[in-house]
Amino acid sequence: MQFTSEQRLEDGVIEREFVLGDIPGILWTPESASEPMPLILISPPPLGLRKTYPRLLARARHTVAEGYAVATIELPWSGDRPRSAAADEALADLHRALAAGGPVDDEIVDRLILPLVDKAVPEWQATLDALLALPELGGPVGYSGGVISIGTRLAVVEPRIAAAVLFAGSFVPRAILAEARKVTIPLHVLLQWDDEGNDRQMALDLFDAFGSKEKALYANMGGHTGVPQHAGEEANRFFARHLK
Amino acid sequence: MQFTSEQRLEDGVIEREFVLGDIPGILWTPESASEPMPLILISPPPLGLRKTYPRLLARARHTVAEGYAVATIELPWSGDRPRSAAADEALADLHRALAAGGPVDDEIVDRLILPLVDKAVPEWQATLDALLALPELGGPVGYSGGVISIGTRLAVVEPRIAAAVLFAGSFVPRAILAEARKVTIPLHVLLQWDDEGNDRQMALDLFDAFGSKEKALYANMGGHTGVPQHAGEEANRFFARHLK
Repeated sequence: MQFTSEQRLEDGVIEREFVLGDIPGILWTPESASEPMPLILISPPPLGLRKTYPRLLARARHTVAEGYAVATIELPWSGDRPRSAAADEALADLHRALAAGGPVDDEIVDRLILPLVDKAVPEWQATLDALLALPELGGPVGYSGGVISIGTRLAVVEPRIAAAVLFAGSFVPRAILAEARKVTIPLHVLLQWDDEGNDRQMALDLFDAFGSKEKALYANMGGHTGVPQHAGEEANRFFARHLK
Repeated sequence: MQFTSEQRLEDGVIEREFVLGDIPGILWTPESASEPMPLILISPPPLGLRKTYPRLLARARHTVAEGYAVATIELPWSGDRPRSAAADEALADLHRALAAGGPVDDEIVDRLILPLVDKAVPEWQATLDALLALPELGGPVGYSGGVISIGTRLAVVEPRIAAAVLFAGSFVPRAILAEARKVTIPLHVLLQWDDEGNDRQMALDLFDAFGSKEKALYANMGGHTGVPQHAGEEANRFFARHLK
């Protein structure tokens, strides 16, 4: 992990850009902290870090103010990272299926999501290795993520993640539904009830499948991008209950 | 409405018992309040006020401390109120159907719930008439209720109720599902995901049916009676957003 820039934002938050191999990322920490901090990994939606930066920064500032370090990395095939022809094709097939108003074939969802999960999860684990080697970061670690299948796999394979906030806003392969039974950490799952581009029943099936004894589903109105502000505050309180 | 007792609890909460006709009720208010307060009606589960008093009192204390008046009344056929042979029979039929592990006939649910709704809703309205005539109570009014069909009907017919917390933990007649579309006030619906004695799919259908633009479903684990403490705090914050 190499830091490529460092700046102090006006509210005393230190923002450091880094690269891990060819993966760009950002780490936000408070200017001064007496003890190693818990860390929250925020996985962006697959739109690229640059496009989502203002939203990520707002969340990071809020979260740093509550005593956490926050980090994010670019997802595979997003932002300035090399694209995948197969993923582009699967996405085009998904959009065609949605435009036709029909159900989306499992096969399309598999082609779109499974390679992304396979590639992203080890990248998040390598990022965690590098971040937890920094003296100011001591864990525990929370994960807050955009593509719910990535968060699901990560919760199964990565024991350093103690609690996760998952956003049920993307299609879920059946294979991930099977993996969900192996998740045992506390989960706080956000669902936009009236998210037109999402398969609500699949989201409910996934929530039901999670093996965690403590799991909560918070469903709100407002469409895919309309998560209300109080839902973000409740997610922060969930992390406070489990990471502090 | 006649007050039958008044006592000052140790934390400065005034507890007044009352009767409205033959319906017993309790009103909790702070010792001193400079302006008319918003009111939260808490509908108990159908176990009787006496049995649920410790839980009701704990909630009332917490809610009064946040600047509300809190009131409750005994549900029809509960506590010391006259029982209904028809309701007892319907309840026995429900328990038989559940014990047999089969689905519960709509007809049993109708017999159990619809007469209760028909009788309870005007009682809550009469209680509201009497309470809002008190100088210290100025509205707005929130409703927090145990039998979700009562809360649904009340939200449709009673314009003085500005926001409601509903507990999706009881069977819902199809007729109430149809009424739910007419509900337009902000709703905060609690569901215990692993509530064995509840029809979860019906709860989800009811939530979907509510016509409110602002509605949220909060599903937690812990069985019928295991609503976690933070869920109560989130419900309080919902009322604070809408009643203050």
